[in-house]
Amino acid sequence: MKVSRYKKEDDITYALGATVVMEYLNNCPAAVKGVILHPQFRSEETIEKIRAICSENNISLVTEEKPFNILSQKENCFVIAVIAKMHGQIRPGNHVVLVNPSNAGNLGTIMRSCAGFGILDIAIVPPAVDHFDPKTIRASMGAAARVRVEVFNSFEEYRSRFGSNNIYPFMLDGSTLLQDTKIDGDFSLVFGNEATGLPSEFSGIGHPIRIEHTDNIDSLNLPIAASIALYAATKDIFSKEI
Amino acid sequence: MKVSRYKKEDDITYALGATVVMEYLNNCPAAVKGVILHPQFRSEETIEKIRAICSENNISLVTEEKPFNILSQKENCFVIAVIAKMHGQIRPGNHVVLVNPSNAGNLGTIMRSCAGFGILDIAIVPPAVDHFDPKTIRASMGAAARVRVEVFNSFEEYRSRFGSNNIYPFMLDGSTLLQDTKIDGDFSLVFGNEATGLPSEFSGIGHPIRIEHTDNIDSLNLPIAASIALYAATKDIFSKEI
Repeated sequence: MKVSRYKKEDDITYALGATVVMEYLNNCPAAVKGVILHPQFRSEETIEKIRAICSENNISLVTEEKPFNILSQKENCFVIAVIAKMHGQIRPGNHVVLVNPSNAGNLGTIMRSCAGFGILDIAIVPPAVDHFDPKTIRASMGAAARVRVEVFNSFEEYRSRFGSNNIYPFMLDGSTLLQDTKIDGDFSLVFGNEATGLPSEFSGIGHPIRIEHTDNIDSLNLPIAASIALYAATKDIFSKEI
Repeated sequence: MKVSRYKKEDDITYALGATVVMEYLNNCPAAVKGVILHPQFRSEETIEKIRAICSENNISLVTEEKPFNILSQKENCFVIAVIAKMHGQIRPGNHVVLVNPSNAGNLGTIMRSCAGFGILDIAIVPPAVDHFDPKTIRASMGAAARVRVEVFNSFEEYRSRFGSNNIYPFMLDGSTLLQDTKIDGDFSLVFGNEATGLPSEFSGIGHPIRIEHTDNIDSLNLPIAASIALYAATKDIFSKEI
């Protein structure tokens, strides 16, 4: 199977590693264009599962070493899936909105937490890291196969489509503490760039929130802040439903 | 200044990058044995600060390119500090206890969150990743200079020293939801390995807690879970004190 080093312009991307590939095969087989096994992959049970799903869905399956040399230098990766990029729209409901996220691994970790807390729609406002980057997909541990991601031209464009959502920008100069804020509605949890946070004009939009921390650190890591917010926003739902 | 690729047995480690180096110089100058500037480092303001602290504390400061080739392949790193490993004891009070943490970056991210939520004492139960690894220090964004870390031989050894702490093991089969649990005491938040979690015997120790998530994911990322727990455990303190 022909693969080449990932480029943003490509209409395909790659899922690296058995866990991530299985997530795509189980949850989004229509996006999987092919699966490559490493000749030294020995996990018979996983191979059997992959074989069954590929056969059922007419997905080509090959065993070859070369693609691993091209796509995966360091990690102990024994399965690769070639994934068609699916461009869709997010649905009405609760959202996470990322304004100018810049790190592929962070974006993947946020996808994993979003899936974990049942928020399956993520809006992105550019400039932003490529959400199809194999590093993002790998950091998501396959949650990329479950969440819907839509890139908007601007926050205004996002807001005009989801005008009835309550907007909660997370920022240092936010006016209420997370633990003192009731997050309800359909809600939009909005986060800025890793280094610079949200632009100051967001302090006039919706209900700005801050996650208080000591001055021992400059800021919380972005996926950590987003995940704390997701926990706080969804904990009442979990208490009721489960 | 002579440097060599980091090894666990060494009695020194390295802080890579201006942010991390400044944290050490500001908070723990006694541990800094030397600072190396890259010949292309151009941030005059930072260089001036480094120069002043090094001069005041008798820390040798050199400008050299070679150490960067040895210690820092990829990142845009223009300052390195040589750090003496400080072995100390954690203090009575609130703790995070990590049983078998295996990933250097994750450990650093947890240190950053601990510092952010005011928990400055971390206990580690081996087998565990080396908490002096430069990757850990870098992921901590320099919080490694602020937290105290102690490695115990076993969880029992930890517990016998801090017998009056309330123990909260975080595990999937924990019996109460985080949002329904009052965390008080002096408390110990206990987390297991990234892949395997805590051994099952922890379900009989203290007050096991789970952070509920959907079955969209297998588990939360370890630093995410620890940080959500830290937020929940300290939010009342923040509400009162700040």
